[in-house]
Amino acid sequence: MLSERLTDYSELTEKKLGELLGESEQAPILQESMAYSVFSGGKRIRPALCMAACELCGGVPEDALLAACALEMIHTYSLIHDDLPAMDNDDMRRGKPSNHKAFGEANAILAGDGLLSLAFYALSLCPHKDALTPIAKGAFEMVMGQSLDVNSGGDGSLLQKLQDFKTGALFRAAVAAGAACAGASHEQRDSLVQFANAYGMLFQITDDILDCEGEATVLGKSVGKDAEEGKTTFVTFYGLDRAKEFAKKYANEAREAVLQVGENTAFFTELISYTLTRKS
Amino acid sequence: MLSERLTDYSELTEKKLGELLGESEQAPILQESMAYSVFSGGKRIRPALCMAACELCGGVPEDALLAACALEMIHTYSLIHDDLPAMDNDDMRRGKPSNHKAFGEANAILAGDGLLSLAFYALSLCPHKDALTPIAKGAFEMVMGQSLDVNSGGDGSLLQKLQDFKTGALFRAAVAAGAACAGASHEQRDSLVQFANAYGMLFQITDDILDCEGEATVLGKSVGKDAEEGKTTFVTFYGLDRAKEFAKKYANEAREAVLQVGENTAFFTELISYTLTRKS
Repeated sequence: MLSERLTDYSELTEKKLGELLGESEQAPILQESMAYSVFSGGKRIRPALCMAACELCGGVPEDALLAACALEMIHTYSLIHDDLPAMDNDDMRRGKPSNHKAFGEANAILAGDGLLSLAFYALSLCPHKDALTPIAKGAFEMVMGQSLDVNSGGDGSLLQKLQDFKTGALFRAAVAAGAACAGASHEQRDSLVQFANAYGMLFQITDDILDCEGEATVLGKSVGKDAEEGKTTFVTFYGLDRAKEFAKKYANEAREAVLQVGENTAFFTELISYTLTRKS
Repeated sequence: MLSERLTDYSELTEKKLGELLGESEQAPILQESMAYSVFSGGKRIRPALCMAACELCGGVPEDALLAACALEMIHTYSLIHDDLPAMDNDDMRRGKPSNHKAFGEANAILAGDGLLSLAFYALSLCPHKDALTPIAKGAFEMVMGQSLDVNSGGDGSLLQKLQDFKTGALFRAAVAAGAACAGASHEQRDSLVQFANAYGMLFQITDDILDCEGEATVLGKSVGKDAEEGKTTFVTFYGLDRAKEFAKKYANEAREAVLQVGENTAFFTELISYTLTRKS
């Protein structure tokens, strides 16, 4: 059920993303470098959340498709820029050389800039004009989170706020934009945002747990890097056991919030369970 | 007259930019690094064109203020990323250390990403929803131009197209968004875009001429860099005399186009004359 819905959303998203990347045909290397990272086996969680939120509020997935593509392009640009030598300096991403390893730093910077710009161009084509605000806000908050991360010097007291911006912001954007594309009520949107706040924490904490316990071959990236680099994560700061307790707590909060929104919450509750026990 | 209008537009823009940058107060280093480049003595030509276009089409400057600020933030982000070591590797900008020299590369990448995101957040607050499309398109075309530039290997046949994207795109965006904020007719908007096409070329060609003939102290940056680095510009490709002829031709085209839009074209015609003979 969950995997079918994810596949359906993913197929819709990938087709539309292909069309949108066609806008860059006059700059072939930009197009190639953007496509390299956009089509590299991402799980498309953010587009799925956006379209599922739209459906839960009474719309059809296609209502939220341009917003969903914008979110995926914003997510992808953030990965490309995060991997740059001046940032996390990661050579691998999803089991392949990272964008700057494949295309060089200048082209990687531009692939990120291009995807962020194209995301808002996609939104300009979306008839649901209210979707712009949450997505622009989410994109900006994500940069704030990244800035706090780069400059925090491992200060653990910033961890929650930092991750709320870095990871939570785009999940909030996804459900709020999906709700906007369905013409949802304020109450529905607010409950979805509460869901996203909790789900974002769940997602980040389980990501930190995977870095500690996961298998590199399943993840497509190296593990144990956080501890090695002295990075402050939920696992390094609170320890593995408390991190797992936190994950359960946020999973419960996310479940309760989504039940306030509408009837058919199966996608969301299954996604929460899947994330709580994820292997990648 | 021109300088008064530019000052008025600039004051409006700077006040609003200050308010918008306040959105980043939770990430102090991001805020500081964005403000460093946004408030570094730029001429604010793009916001001025946006508000002047709005006025020429019957609006007041304030109608286009959020769009104008978005354009200036997009322009500023592009300068920050262009100066990065992996791109043009410029240590100075407007007589001061460039952003990455002042804040380090990671913060400079994020300052650019933050300004681009905040630009679209500003646009999400603008009641004139039609302003989004030209600005998002302009931001994306600018990245295409930059990509062509980075990968062209000095191919002169790409020069015009490349500069049309790199410089022209944001001028087109400025006047089209200004027109949208005034509820202009399609004819007015199309004539303004024709103006911007010609004005963008005029602006770039005179920029290339300044790199050859200008004074470093007036420009606030080094001169002769294009020729030194073997860069293809209108001057290095066509020679100084033909570049000057081209500048005059585009100035005439820009003048003719703007006369089709409305009555009070003084700002535009004076700006064209000023640009044709500019010293910085």
